Amino acid sequence: MKNMQEEMLKYLEKIIEEEKQVARKGEIPDYIEAVDNNDHGAVTVSLTSIDGTTVRAGDHEGRFSLQSISKLFPLALSLMDYGSEEVFNYTGKAPTGNVYHSLIQMEMQEKEKPLNPMVNSGAIVMCGLMKGDSADEKFERVLALARDLTGNQELTYNENVYQAENQDLNRSLFYYNRHNGYIDGEFEDVMPVYWKMTSIEVTIEELSNMAAVIANHGKCVHSGKEIIPSDIVTTLKAFMVTCGMYDESGSFALEVGIPAKSGVSGSIVAAIPGKLGIGVMGPDLNKYSNSIAGIRMLKKISNKWRLSLFSEDGSS
Amino acid sequence: MKNMQEEMLKYLEKIIEEEKQVARKGEIPDYIEAVDNNDHGAVTVSLTSIDGTTVRAGDHEGRFSLQSISKLFPLALSLMDYGSEEVFNYTGKAPTGNVYHSLIQMEMQEKEKPLNPMVNSGAIVMCGLMKGDSADEKFERVLALARDLTGNQELTYNENVYQAENQDLNRSLFYYNRHNGYIDGEFEDVMPVYWKMTSIEVTIEELSNMAAVIANHGKCVHSGKEIIPSDIVTTLKAFMVTCGMYDESGSFALEVGIPAKSGVSGSIVAAIPGKLGIGVMGPDLNKYSNSIAGIRMLKKISNKWRLSLFSEDGSS
Amino acid sequence: MKNMQEEMLKYLEKIIEEEKQVARKGEIPDYIEAVDNNDHGAVTVSLTSIDGTTVRAGDHEGRFSLQSISKLFPLALSLMDYGSEEVFNYTGKAPTGNVYHSLIQMEMQEKEKPLNPMVNSGAIVMCGLMKGDSADEKFERVLALARDLTGNQELTYNENVYQAENQDLNRSLFYYNRHNGYIDGEFEDVMPVYWKMTSIEVTIEELSNMAAVIANHGKCVHSGKEIIPSDIVTTLKAFMVTCGMYDESGSFALEVGIPAKSGVSGSIVAAIPGKLGIGVMGPDLNKYSNSIAGIRMLKKISNKWRLSLFSEDGSS
Amino acid sequence: MKNMQEEMLKYLEKIIEEEKQVARKGEIPDYIEAVDNNDHGAVTVSLTSIDGTTVRAGDHEGRFSLQSISKLFPLALSLMDYGSEEVFNYTGKAPTGNVYHSLIQMEMQEKEKPLNPMVNSGAIVMCGLMKGDSADEKFERVLALARDLTGNQELTYNENVYQAENQDLNRSLFYYNRHNGYIDGEFEDVMPVYWKMTSIEVTIEELSNMAAVIANHGKCVHSGKEIIPSDIVTTLKAFMVTCGMYDESGSFALEVGIPAKSGVSGSIVAAIPGKLGIGVMGPDLNKYSNSIAGIRMLKKISNKWRLSLFSEDGSS
Repeated sequence: MKNMQEEMLKYLEKIIEEEKQVARKGEIPDYIEAVDNNDHGAVTVSLTSIDGTTVRAGDHEGRFSLQSISKLFPLALSLMDYGSEEVFNYTGKAPTGNVYHSLIQMEMQEKEKPLNPMVNSGAIVMCGLMKGDSADEKFERVLALARDLTGNQELTYNENVYQAENQDLNRSLFYYNRHNGYIDGEFEDVMPVYWKMTSIEVTIEELSNMAAVIANHGKCVHSGKEIIPSDIVTTLKAFMVTCGMYDESGSFALEVGIPAKSGVSGSIVAAIPGKLGIGVMGPDLNKYSNSIAGIRMLKKISNKWRLSLFSEDGSS
Repeated sequence: MKNMQEEMLKYLEKIIEEEKQVARKGEIPDYIEAVDNNDHGAVTVSLTSIDGTTVRAGDHEGRFSLQSISKLFPLALSLMDYGSEEVFNYTGKAPTGNVYHSLIQMEMQEKEKPLNPMVNSGAIVMCGLMKGDSADEKFERVLALARDLTGNQELTYNENVYQAENQDLNRSLFYYNRHNGYIDGEFEDVMPVYWKMTSIEVTIEELSNMAAVIANHGKCVHSGKEIIPSDIVTTLKAFMVTCGMYDESGSFALEVGIPAKSGVSGSIVAAIPGKLGIGVMGPDLNKYSNSIAGIRMLKKISNKWRLSLFSEDGSS
Repeated sequence: MKNMQEEMLKYLEKIIEEEKQVARKGEIPDYIEAVDNNDHGAVTVSLTSIDGTTVRAGDHEGRFSLQSISKLFPLALSLMDYGSEEVFNYTGKAPTGNVYHSLIQMEMQEKEKPLNPMVNSGAIVMCGLMKGDSADEKFERVLALARDLTGNQELTYNENVYQAENQDLNRSLFYYNRHNGYIDGEFEDVMPVYWKMTSIEVTIEELSNMAAVIANHGKCVHSGKEIIPSDIVTTLKAFMVTCGMYDESGSFALEVGIPAKSGVSGSIVAAIPGKLGIGVMGPDLNKYSNSIAGIRMLKKISNKWRLSLFSEDGSS
Repeated sequence: MKNMQEEMLKYLEKIIEEEKQVARKGEIPDYIEAVDNNDHGAVTVSLTSIDGTTVRAGDHEGRFSLQSISKLFPLALSLMDYGSEEVFNYTGKAPTGNVYHSLIQMEMQEKEKPLNPMVNSGAIVMCGLMKGDSADEKFERVLALARDLTGNQELTYNENVYQAENQDLNRSLFYYNRHNGYIDGEFEDVMPVYWKMTSIEVTIEELSNMAAVIANHGKCVHSGKEIIPSDIVTTLKAFMVTCGMYDESGSFALEVGIPAKSGVSGSIVAAIPGKLGIGVMGPDLNKYSNSIAGIRMLKKISNKWRLSLFSEDGSS
């Protein structure tokens, strides 16, 4: 066991070193670069196995915002509140992956329903649907869940990032979905939840803790306490495979084969069921808005220990 | 072991009985109904575990055409011929799932590239790409692979079904993809491969044999002989999850969670990695062109033995 | 001359009578029905020739809101403010007519630019572009133009209709276009202009006065005073032909062949260059949101006096 | 009259001179450049008034293929054969102008119906619909019409151009439309008509003769004989305005305002109803596949003599 950990640490340090030697290739979104504490060189990785052991490498001290990774929260809470039959009256279950068309059209399917809960439209609709009498009440629930998942009861959101998130595209999506009947509430009761949750800041270790809970079917890897019911975690993992990586989901399923969700801060949460939670972070993004270093490290980790759900060892 | 088999048989007989009591709800495509030997009541299921044991129930004597299930063959052969880097210059890796738009547009992504190798466009392009100097040579390779996968060296295609497959939509897709540079050859060197392979006829047991090879990472469950290299089988399983069930792939991942590929004959091949191959068959189709009885039976089987890749037990 | 007028009056009364005998076939949008004074039976028509003579028939006393007809105003004002080269950096010039897709996608072309100034997106962008330091200042200019065109210096908007116009779809379009860089200002400086102008109420005779000014190349048919420069009127008429009748524009060009703009109040303004201005009104709408009675009356009038721009007599 | 002609000639020579001094900016499609006798410098223009007088300038000796201009023929013939009610069961009446999407999708509207008879899909469908027992019989009718319109009874098609036209995209459209039920016949009874008609070669004077017949409401400007019934010519002119210039139709309506149809040979036929027929030719094409020199010359001619249907003088 001790040897295994040492071997893992050595390998993580090796791949972090490899990333550090690669010149910057991608972009950091302006509003993230301006307000978040990301710098191009900062790459880091953390592995938390379901027995509770964590191994990490790289610049693991920093905090970064969850961005789209937070879309898992209102989906989980809505499923707990209403069950899946009701929830999927409000969004589809379709994969993301067709790179055609206008931003808004890409987010919708037949009858203008949001494609799935992992696109902006669907996550905004979930923020509207989940129980809570005000944005504050809703966000308290989101934050409580995030604290339980990361194991850090002091977790909070970054006010500067929150202010910067306040974007017209998401306003447009709010009104479009309300026009189509998928949101019932007021702007000020819904959108602050969305923008605040994307601004929640974590360390890489907290991210791999959260991943480990998902890998552990919803139970805390330290206390064994159920944080999210097992069947809802199954749903989260299925969505992470079919639409967790924006338009790169299909390609990621082939090449990495691990349920994962990315955010534009350059972070990715990845969970190998029954085994391991992974957090990776590297701020430069590819054209799909996914972390270049993050995807490269996940690919190496998946190959190294044969972790793909679809590979020979990954499934045994 | 014996008890396990008996329990499985009993359960399969139970769910077949349940299907038989359900009134016909869906449609059988005209051209399938006319030429294939499907009748509405015929439902059947077969399970082949990777230790080689098969259990089956229902009307398991009949033969039915593979239809879109056969799309796995030219993809596997092209990957063997050229490797994945080259192959994915010819099709995308995007999931299927957005129900918008014209048939042709649904099949394409940016630069008019076929969305993935599981849509008609992509499979036609694979039939053009795979090695072979003529349609006959190409089809011989496809048939040899199908025979190895099913374990029946007498397997062949149904001439009546083949004649009926000869459809304008697929002609249109051939010329459209050739216009876009994704096909190089002549109509008569490509399209007969596509139409013949969809007309290959199997029994339900042959289908679960094929599924078991995929579950067994490409090796025959009886002889242990490698039929498809393991890494290519990984690719097949990833595509089965993201685009194996037409526009219902996202929903199927959530509710069943097993890599699967369906055909309009009402058949579905499903493979639980490292465990079990499943064939199901029921000719009535839902609006996504998937077997109504087939999906219902797979859902029951997945829940009964917790087989979803994303569930607690499915991943352990 | 007198005889001509009498003949026209007789014909108009005849076609009004025919409309009155036709059972209600279409729909009135809920929000229009609730707040505007439209009732299903109310059909009316008015013709103002460029010599200033007006002939009218039907229920010509009522007032109704201009709705989309008002889109001509911010376009005309923006063209006066900046000239066409600058204005068409903000919207395209493409016809409306493809009935595919989501509402938002239908309104956009390449680079998410509004399709043209006659769709909601384009008109909202024009309300943002036109000069004026506040919504009040902008709306004063719009109202002044509407008063000059109709010849009624008391013209104003209906407060109830204005309140009811306050719709989420148009909010969504505002933020979407601002996200894409086609709007620069604040919500409260733009959207009240859009909603108030659609709520301006006119009589049928005022509508045909306005049509006559367009037919008269921008000059008042009574005073000869220029209200809109002639080249801008040319632009308006071209847009009225290619995109004045929503998705029915192509069909209307074939069957009526007169530059026209419709609104969901059931009103249509139509201008035969150098000849005649027409206003028609009938509240029931067809599936394209155009007045059923209005289109039928325009077709009869166009055929009766061979007014189509594309017909033998219409062009002589 | 004589003076008018001299003034026109002088102006045409001036604008040809201006075009000759402009460096080549656009592209000639490969297959056109290879087989047709177009060279980049060749610009020419011809005006035929409805009194039968022709004035021309530039390289007016050469012959060039009609390409998409020929789409007017099967539409006119189908309308003569069946009337407009029946014909528009087979194509829509929607304008062309939305530059989105795949080539095939751009050509279709709801229910996969061709957008209008001026896109490839619609013209292919018209070639299928028009009467004639074989491709030869159909093409004989098309050629007879082209000969009457141009006044050259020796008119024929260019065999080399015809061979080169034989493209996969149009094959694809044929099968796609037959799949959707808009074509009934065999490939060899339809597609040769389409490809041969696009290969018909004319001189610039023959093109302006054809334009003059359209301007003269279907009657020969020399003999007065009816070649196309007046109401069908009205339909042609309406389509020329809403969809005659590919995706540039909306912009052309604003800036030129003359019913016109372009072809990828660089030729444009334009008809000012009751006045004048115009042919222009310049092989270099803009991004919309329209002649750069042709559009520039038409804009100058339209402005010079105020010919826009929507302008003050154009409508008087």
